Amino acid sequence: MKVVASLALAAAAVTLAAPASAQFAKPEDAVKYRQSAMFIMGQHFGRIGAMVNGKAPYDAAAAAASAEVVADMAKLPWPGFHPSTDKITQTKAKPEIYAEPAKFKEASEKLQAEAPKLATVAKANNLDTLKAQFGETAKACKGCHDNFRNQ
Amino acid sequence: MKVVASLALAAAAVTLAAPASAQFAKPEDAVKYRQSAMFIMGQHFGRIGAMVNGKAPYDAAAAAASAEVVADMAKLPWPGFHPSTDKITQTKAKPEIYAEPAKFKEASEKLQAEAPKLATVAKANNLDTLKAQFGETAKACKGCHDNFRNQ
Repeated sequence: MKVVASLALAAAAVTLAAPASAQFAKPEDAVKYRQSAMFIMGQHFGRIGAMVNGKAPYDAAAAAASAEVVADMAKLPWPGFHPSTDKITQTKAKPEIYAEPAKFKEASEKLQAEAPKLATVAKANNLDTLKAQFGETAKACKGCHDNFRNQ
Repeated sequence: MKVVASLALAAAAVTLAAPASAQFAKPEDAVKYRQSAMFIMGQHFGRIGAMVNGKAPYDAAAAAASAEVVADMAKLPWPGFHPSTDKITQTKAKPEIYAEPAKFKEASEKLQAEAPKLATVAKANNLDTLKAQFGETAKACKGCHDNFRNQ
């Protein structure tokens, strides 16, 4: 336990060169992180979409599980849109993300408000209300993509 | 609501060519999905690792948030290791995953048992117990990587 205590003291004493906001070792990691979260979110949102659009049989348990993942993922990507990534141009991210941070934040918060509602609605096992909230969540996706993502 | 009702009927009536287990449109999506989940998990596990190894200041709230993401991510990658992906060779996944599915499942379940414990322990705000459970979780990662992932 002495070693652990020493480590704790060392950790407390350490002064990092990087600011606390720099959660990623390098800008490429930030990009990969946000793209990873968006990809997982898209896969699960797509599975719900297939159900509400009649392209796949409605499976209440699968919809609820996917909606939960969508809600979890909706929290994640945002620190990945770090200003340090603005020189990485082989992404769909538009420079407006960094030029209009307040507008981007507002758009991201719209999704973070709708996605948990999707998770709640999906648990209720009613395809009509799931379809309605899927539409609201899709609007939040689109509202941000239209302004901040290249097609 | 008539449209929604029609869609629901259509969804119920639809017969899919793909089996229910095929959650991904194509094997490449399955690979990207599992790699995305592993990458996000690794980022957050690494943040906790930096704290317990004294390379970053201990931040109880950040550790708890990261442990929660690790636990969420630990649930996800497994369907991505679908047998249909065994021809995609530009990954670190070893063929043993598909040759010894029971052993791979056991290794994956070890992580799925340890990761939620990490999330619970991280909430208790005690660096000693966090360090211990970080070690157990790291063992679960390594146990699977040693046998099923190329370095």
